[in-house]
Amino acid sequence: MNEKDTICAIATPPGIGALAIVRASGEKAIEICDKIYDYQGKRLAKQPANTIHYGFITNNSKLIDEVLVSIFRAPNSYTGENSVEISCHGSIYIQQEILKALIRNGARQALPGEFTLRAFMNGKMDLSQAEAVADLIASSSEASHNVAINQMRGGFSSELKNLRNKLLHFVSLVELELDFSEEDVEFANRNELKNLIQEVKNVIDMLSVSFEYGNVIKNGIPVAIIGKPNVGKSTLLNSLIKEEKAIVSEIAGTTRDAIEDVIVIEGISFRFIDTAGLRDTDDVIESLGIKVTHEKISKAKIVLWLADAGNCLAEINQGINEIKAILGKKQRLFVLINKIDKYEEAEIDLKYGKINFKGLDKKDRVILISAKKHFQLDRLHDELVNAILPEKQDDVIITNIRHYEALQLASKALERALSGIDKNLPGDLLAQDIRETMHYIGEISGEITTDEILGNIFKNFCIGK
Amino acid sequence: MNEKDTICAIATPPGIGALAIVRASGEKAIEICDKIYDYQGKRLAKQPANTIHYGFITNNSKLIDEVLVSIFRAPNSYTGENSVEISCHGSIYIQQEILKALIRNGARQALPGEFTLRAFMNGKMDLSQAEAVADLIASSSEASHNVAINQMRGGFSSELKNLRNKLLHFVSLVELELDFSEEDVEFANRNELKNLIQEVKNVIDMLSVSFEYGNVIKNGIPVAIIGKPNVGKSTLLNSLIKEEKAIVSEIAGTTRDAIEDVIVIEGISFRFIDTAGLRDTDDVIESLGIKVTHEKISKAKIVLWLADAGNCLAEINQGINEIKAILGKKQRLFVLINKIDKYEEAEIDLKYGKINFKGLDKKDRVILISAKKHFQLDRLHDELVNAILPEKQDDVIITNIRHYEALQLASKALERALSGIDKNLPGDLLAQDIRETMHYIGEISGEITTDEILGNIFKNFCIGK
Repeated sequence: MNEKDTICAIATPPGIGALAIVRASGEKAIEICDKIYDYQGKRLAKQPANTIHYGFITNNSKLIDEVLVSIFRAPNSYTGENSVEISCHGSIYIQQEILKALIRNGARQALPGEFTLRAFMNGKMDLSQAEAVADLIASSSEASHNVAINQMRGGFSSELKNLRNKLLHFVSLVELELDFSEEDVEFANRNELKNLIQEVKNVIDMLSVSFEYGNVIKNGIPVAIIGKPNVGKSTLLNSLIKEEKAIVSEIAGTTRDAIEDVIVIEGISFRFIDTAGLRDTDDVIESLGIKVTHEKISKAKIVLWLADAGNCLAEINQGINEIKAILGKKQRLFVLINKIDKYEEAEIDLKYGKINFKGLDKKDRVILISAKKHFQLDRLHDELVNAILPEKQDDVIITNIRHYEALQLASKALERALSGIDKNLPGDLLAQDIRETMHYIGEISGEITTDEILGNIFKNFCIGK
Repeated sequence: MNEKDTICAIATPPGIGALAIVRASGEKAIEICDKIYDYQGKRLAKQPANTIHYGFITNNSKLIDEVLVSIFRAPNSYTGENSVEISCHGSIYIQQEILKALIRNGARQALPGEFTLRAFMNGKMDLSQAEAVADLIASSSEASHNVAINQMRGGFSSELKNLRNKLLHFVSLVELELDFSEEDVEFANRNELKNLIQEVKNVIDMLSVSFEYGNVIKNGIPVAIIGKPNVGKSTLLNSLIKEEKAIVSEIAGTTRDAIEDVIVIEGISFRFIDTAGLRDTDDVIESLGIKVTHEKISKAKIVLWLADAGNCLAEINQGINEIKAILGKKQRLFVLINKIDKYEEAEIDLKYGKINFKGLDKKDRVILISAKKHFQLDRLHDELVNAILPEKQDDVIITNIRHYEALQLASKALERALSGIDKNLPGDLLAQDIRETMHYIGEISGEITTDEILGNIFKNFCIGK
């Protein structure tokens, strides 16, 4: 990866549209663009930054398109380098020809995420912010968008930086003691140090805890719909889909064959697991074996178990028992008594209204619904959202497993440091644990980094970002 | 359609990308954008035209994204109106939220092609140029791109305008004669008029002739691959696809199930008809009936008929006869003697080299190939391109059936005028034919237009253009 190169890429989504943007960044980006730009002898290199210029792009003196070229100059650009954005007609042919023309004149095709990598390298953002750019682009619900944009705008990284600097201050004092080890001085007050370490550990542990919620927000909450044949599973799924217009799986252009349907409720994505058999088919056709049901349950955070309002209570209690036996502690069970439109209200009341089902936790729910008549589905919505909300942290949310792992390691090092202070361990051992903590925190923001870490992060970006 | 409204739309291709652009146009476009834009109190309305501004977009005071806003002012914009282009992170959620924010603050979603319609209404381009914008965006090969950009840059419309003005001059003189009809004067020299009409008719007929080629360039040349089972049809298709990297059907993101494969050779698209059964299957499986073959042939401009080099001459001659019997005059037949790698060169020479097949026209071709070994496929490429090139006009090419129909009608009116002059018909009848010609020519460039014509043209545009 040569950082002196001028890189170029199509930045807009692939395909045909009214407009598309081809961008280039690097010391010579504007000069290279000048070679393929033509308008009455105008030279882009002489134009002021942050201006837009009408003109023509030619490749090998063949007219490619009428375009608008936006000019940015270092350091005031996304990458921090000289940059151009060529806004052209959105035909695939034109986009590719402009890219070819730039490459012919000295630019090279950018690697995935290379624009953002340069922004990081040039100090325009730290590493966790760079990672948030990819999350932001991929975010498809309000909740995941909020988490990503908060992280991109600084989020937890400034707080971590602040804590890291405080640790640095103390570790320097501890290390200073080592130089005077024969004199047995103590520059770093052990009580203050202990308080600081505890403070840092609290923040880090809070961030770690937020990961579970953050991860769920980022990837959607997995929900399983299970129940015996004919109990109304596909009707329920179809009714939910009909009520919520925003089905992410359709918006994102994925095919109907997608195994999961995503429904966004109050800005939170719920991923309905393995609904391929449910979407368009009758319940009758679908006859999933026990094994498939077990797999579905194991992947779900919330399990919707449908029963028929005509079932007897013993049947339902047995079903609850069977499911609860395989549910983990963190999984939620919603017992949905379906088809209540078919039974007399009184009868239902009698059967279920005043009876507590056995084996349910406080966080489990029983809801009487009619999937067909859309009865009580609004209550189901509310309960789905509520099942997630209590875990919600205030602002600072970790969504990235790389950050989570670094935080876990930092927390362990801090624990060692704390017990070290209690045991009056020598300063060099303390210093080592604190340095290790700082290393892990630094990895999150990118103050500490390696080519391998960078490579792993940016390879998952789209080209053009 | 209210032309005072400020309209807005996502202008970049649908989907997820590094960047996306939401554009707005109308008298209040910049003011509306100011309501959702925030950066240290900056007001976009006070910024100069053709400048770019970093800032934040909020919707209902919720932060949506960090963006760049480009400002354009009437009349120096695409539409000729005040316009903004908001360059945001290319997440679907962000694109839609920005659109919603603009709409909440007084813009409305643009209709298909409405930006370009406004450009036409505001005199930024004539109607044929506006139509070329849609063609340009849809163009996927060099040839179709050339035709579209030529038309967008003015193409034939300036020439037509020029001819129309000349006709106007003469028709005015003819009509002036009518005012002095009792004096039997002749202001418009009948010989000069006849020459002019002939000149206009020549241009119009030349344009009409170009339509067939233009249409083929725009839509691709339909090619059929036919032949008995096991003769190597799928091998040939796969080899052609492998040689030409640019398969439009793949680039455009259409699925593998597409019935047609498009292969671009020297910038010209060849559409291989009904290849669904050919792409991935063995020849053995495929057993198309006579009816399907007839249908394929009837749609093709070039028919590739494969025979096995091991077939005897009588068999091949019979096959040629059968196909030629159903081929139209303008259709081309390529007899491809396949699998020549399997036979001794001498034997092939003996069998075919010096023998003329019966029933072939001068424009038909016999090529000995090996689809499997890619032998002589370069020659097949050349012949495919050559089969189209002789029809190629120099510059001015009509691709639009609306233009073609108008030209046909204009030509007929001119013919009537010509014969009218020869028959010494009275001036008012002459004037009527010339006026009619002018009407049809005017329809092409949009000097004459109706809401119906405009509606038909712009409904096929994408939204955002």
